[in-house]
Amino acid sequence: MGFYSRLNAAWDANDSMLCVGLDPDLARFPETSQGGVQEIETFCKQIIDATGDLVCAFKPQIAYFAAYGAEKQLENICAYIRDQFPDVVLILDAKRGDIGDTAKLYAREAFVRYNADAVTVNPYLGTDSLEPFLATPDKGTIVLCRTSNAGSSELQSLVTDGEPLYLRIARIAAETWHTIGECALVVGATYPAELAAVRAIVGEMPILVPGIGAQGGDITAVVKAGRDTNRRGLIINSSRAILYADSSISFADSARKVAIETRDEINRARRVN
Amino acid sequence: MGFYSRLNAAWDANDSMLCVGLDPDLARFPETSQGGVQEIETFCKQIIDATGDLVCAFKPQIAYFAAYGAEKQLENICAYIRDQFPDVVLILDAKRGDIGDTAKLYAREAFVRYNADAVTVNPYLGTDSLEPFLATPDKGTIVLCRTSNAGSSELQSLVTDGEPLYLRIARIAAETWHTIGECALVVGATYPAELAAVRAIVGEMPILVPGIGAQGGDITAVVKAGRDTNRRGLIINSSRAILYADSSISFADSARKVAIETRDEINRARRVN
Repeated sequence: MGFYSRLNAAWDANDSMLCVGLDPDLARFPETSQGGVQEIETFCKQIIDATGDLVCAFKPQIAYFAAYGAEKQLENICAYIRDQFPDVVLILDAKRGDIGDTAKLYAREAFVRYNADAVTVNPYLGTDSLEPFLATPDKGTIVLCRTSNAGSSELQSLVTDGEPLYLRIARIAAETWHTIGECALVVGATYPAELAAVRAIVGEMPILVPGIGAQGGDITAVVKAGRDTNRRGLIINSSRAILYADSSISFADSARKVAIETRDEINRARRVN
Repeated sequence: MGFYSRLNAAWDANDSMLCVGLDPDLARFPETSQGGVQEIETFCKQIIDATGDLVCAFKPQIAYFAAYGAEKQLENICAYIRDQFPDVVLILDAKRGDIGDTAKLYAREAFVRYNADAVTVNPYLGTDSLEPFLATPDKGTIVLCRTSNAGSSELQSLVTDGEPLYLRIARIAAETWHTIGECALVVGATYPAELAAVRAIVGEMPILVPGIGAQGGDITAVVKAGRDTNRRGLIINSSRAILYADSSISFADSARKVAIETRDEINRARRVN
């Protein structure tokens, strides 16, 4: 079953467009933890257990593992998601981007080593740099389009041939990348007007939306701007707001509580006209 | 001592602007090797021993390690370069690019975990995504400008405000990134005219030039187009052409032979008018 099919099934199975981002920040761990790399694995598995029936996807951010030499723990976490929640989509957030032979190795890292359903990639090097990802059968390639950070307009909104660069990316995705493989895009929740413009170009292509929660994106605005004609089409990511929600109860309980609230808020917005 | 100072010293110490890229491809290893991750370390150390007195820099490409779970071997290789050739600059080729908190962790991966002098990064997310790298004292941030692959013009040559995007990147590098930290750029050897245009904008900023050797870039054209007013300023990378040069003699001997030829060809081109 390919990425699109798995994503559709996951949206349905848990009635959820919520994605929980696994950004295990040692400095923000519960006080009871020991703070070593093994704690990263334990912490993530507890978050997965607490939220796996509430989400369409988990998205581990590889930098949080690579900074501390915790690749083995990331492998274990990915295998745990597969084992415990086989219907949930696994997205490796790596934002890779490199030329041909090197891109093939990054595709191997994401799709073989970590067995992800999809990986985030950077388009700056062009279509040939994305082909090794796009050409992998049944896997998803999620291309950065308009990122959630404050400085994203600096290059992404430069106007070329009468339209900003991020819309050019959306157009190439719809016209070219979509014909090579199972393509999706990243558009930050902090830019709902831009999200609506991208949606108008890409039809029913899935869009990964980071930036709600700690980064301040508004859920109702995001869903209204970004949903497709089936009122689906979004993978709405929250990381810090769920992982480190409320220190007055156990972190797993507080993660579950915030995940339910967020999923429900997304679903309310999805159904209004 | 900072990245610029170390690079200047390395250019002088070995009278070389050659960088050897460490892209250990298991499929191309000598027949005597066993093909496991330990072989990656042994192979790279033998290349380092054979060429360390001929280069200004070594550039391990992290994808070749990450695809096979060989991060520990990469750590050992980086430490070996420091130990055996302390004057040679160590560049981690990772092409990272992510938002604030995540970028900080990628900076930690490159500069703390692997103790690199410099790391390659992708500019698509804008200045705020580069700041964690640029703000690290004494370390180099080498930003993709015009890459060596055939498809690089697709986005990088789009015209915005009357100039192609890659020249806009060069201008921002010279005007902004250069004021935050020790910035350098990547321009592929396969585009010498573009290299000359970038050099005209960035003054004496170092430029990392991949794409000679297996990718077909012409050394004389590259050096004439890219050298600075001191006839230096370039880090000219060759990977496959040196690592897998000539199967009729030992791979270390053939790597040394090709590295000498390449260094000398660069130096001849550097000195002609």
